[in-house]
Amino acid sequence: MVALGGGHGLYASLTALRTVTSNLTAVVTVADDGGSSGRLRRELGVLPPGDLRMALAALCGDDEWGRTWSRVVQHRFRSEGELHGHAVGNLLIVALWELLGDPVIGLEWVGRLLGAHGRVLPMASVPLDIQAEVEVDGRITTVRGQVACATTPGRVLSISLLPPDPPACPQAVEAIREADWVVFGPGSWFTSVLPHLKVPELARALHETRARRVVILNLAPQPGETDGFSPEKHLEVLREHAPALTFDTVLADHRVVGDRRALEKAAEAMGARLVLADVAVSDGSPRHDGPRLASVLAEIFHGNRRSSRGHVRETGA
Amino acid sequence: MVALGGGHGLYASLTALRTVTSNLTAVVTVADDGGSSGRLRRELGVLPPGDLRMALAALCGDDEWGRTWSRVVQHRFRSEGELHGHAVGNLLIVALWELLGDPVIGLEWVGRLLGAHGRVLPMASVPLDIQAEVEVDGRITTVRGQVACATTPGRVLSISLLPPDPPACPQAVEAIREADWVVFGPGSWFTSVLPHLKVPELARALHETRARRVVILNLAPQPGETDGFSPEKHLEVLREHAPALTFDTVLADHRVVGDRRALEKAAEAMGARLVLADVAVSDGSPRHDGPRLASVLAEIFHGNRRSSRGHVRETGA
Repeated sequence: MVALGGGHGLYASLTALRTVTSNLTAVVTVADDGGSSGRLRRELGVLPPGDLRMALAALCGDDEWGRTWSRVVQHRFRSEGELHGHAVGNLLIVALWELLGDPVIGLEWVGRLLGAHGRVLPMASVPLDIQAEVEVDGRITTVRGQVACATTPGRVLSISLLPPDPPACPQAVEAIREADWVVFGPGSWFTSVLPHLKVPELARALHETRARRVVILNLAPQPGETDGFSPEKHLEVLREHAPALTFDTVLADHRVVGDRRALEKAAEAMGARLVLADVAVSDGSPRHDGPRLASVLAEIFHGNRRSSRGHVRETGA
Repeated sequence: MVALGGGHGLYASLTALRTVTSNLTAVVTVADDGGSSGRLRRELGVLPPGDLRMALAALCGDDEWGRTWSRVVQHRFRSEGELHGHAVGNLLIVALWELLGDPVIGLEWVGRLLGAHGRVLPMASVPLDIQAEVEVDGRITTVRGQVACATTPGRVLSISLLPPDPPACPQAVEAIREADWVVFGPGSWFTSVLPHLKVPELARALHETRARRVVILNLAPQPGETDGFSPEKHLEVLREHAPALTFDTVLADHRVVGDRRALEKAAEAMGARLVLADVAVSDGSPRHDGPRLASVLAEIFHGNRRSSRGHVRETGA
């Protein structure tokens, strides 16, 4: 089982997937240029560690040991000084990279520290920058950098990577080729979910793998990135970035669906059936609920689409 | 078994002691105001972690796990930026303190991470400053801060602490009271070995414990602190800082002894016998050799003073 993404979206999918499979690999974007990660890549020339750290924290062991070290790696210094805002796990990951000389081995050590239920891999072996075509007041401009893409007013149309042909992490390519299921999203659509499709070797593996592919749609548009995007618009954008890629399932919370028929058609255009379910937390905020998402995903993976519990309703396809 | 000190001297004694006893506690000075530790205490208001980190690294597990995490905690960032010079273990210790709210529990977690052969405790519960009376060209001045004490030209005469009556770490007091042996030094005499005697509760415990007390003398004077100090002068300074404290054994490398009779007399004045041995590394540098020091200490602790191996020669007392 491979989950693609970054940030809070990937944290949510991993929180669910860790309970569904014992063989889980996260393939994580390395294009962040903001915050603690951005400072570290500029100061030390390393991959931005933040999304990798969050994914590892999501997979931490269930016992006191795993939970404590997870809190430690997620801890951020607060001060008036030079450490302010740095996440401890970012510093630890970077130190392991400097000492051991290999990003994958360094992440393995943090995984062992946390007693992680799965592996976390970078999608590429070099730090990346995201470049976006953004439409502002009818004019199209090019914006460079993840922070700029996420904060520039306007509507992102498409993204590309700098360098344009980055080397994929070989272990990530292998994991995708050997997977039974590959999960896209949820997460920042342009800056966490789509970048994987722009790493050539990774894109090839994603197309060629015999794994079935699932898209988990977001619970709300993201200001600055996907303002006003309907669920079906998310799928259209995904298709534009990988026209030949087919999917098995599109999973959406039924509350976000406006035009159900349009969403079904967008899913069908990708070869996918649409599954609608209750996967958001109960308080109304746009966050996936771990156990609910896990339950629905388990039903999808096991082909048990018409659950007696009524969580999953198959439509379309 | 309790070892008192800080810095490289304590690292050396712990490297030896860890092979001699299975019940080892290091009680570590918390008065550093330089380097990574100084920056952290100023920025975050915490105990300076550096000497504690080094002691923990000295006690790390023998396996790949312990050795790797020991390298990680000892790793220092090198850059042109804000992280330059920070030791990773210092950041990790401080993060655990911020999260768990208790210095002793935070250090226990780092000890568990390293698979440490022993405990590491701060000598006091609050950050301290060392104040020294220094003689420069016949004039006596007061110098504040460990860095200033170690770098101001002149001869240190005595030290005191700010605040003058700091609370001891209760677990350190208890460890000293329950110990069979307490080991002073080697190390920076005024800034690592003597400060413990200026923490009132710790000094009381050191006087009242039924543990036998050993002094391990340095292999060379330390520029700026003990320039031109003979071994016997080190003992005189120790006596001046704790006149009522008696010792069982003074251990010196025979190569550092100039006036053997004077050194014997200085030891006798403290109630101690003098043990001379080969405890330095072979390359001529003034560093203790772990296995040699361990062998001699084992003979001292087991009352086997006239070793057939000839390492230990008893004199005096």
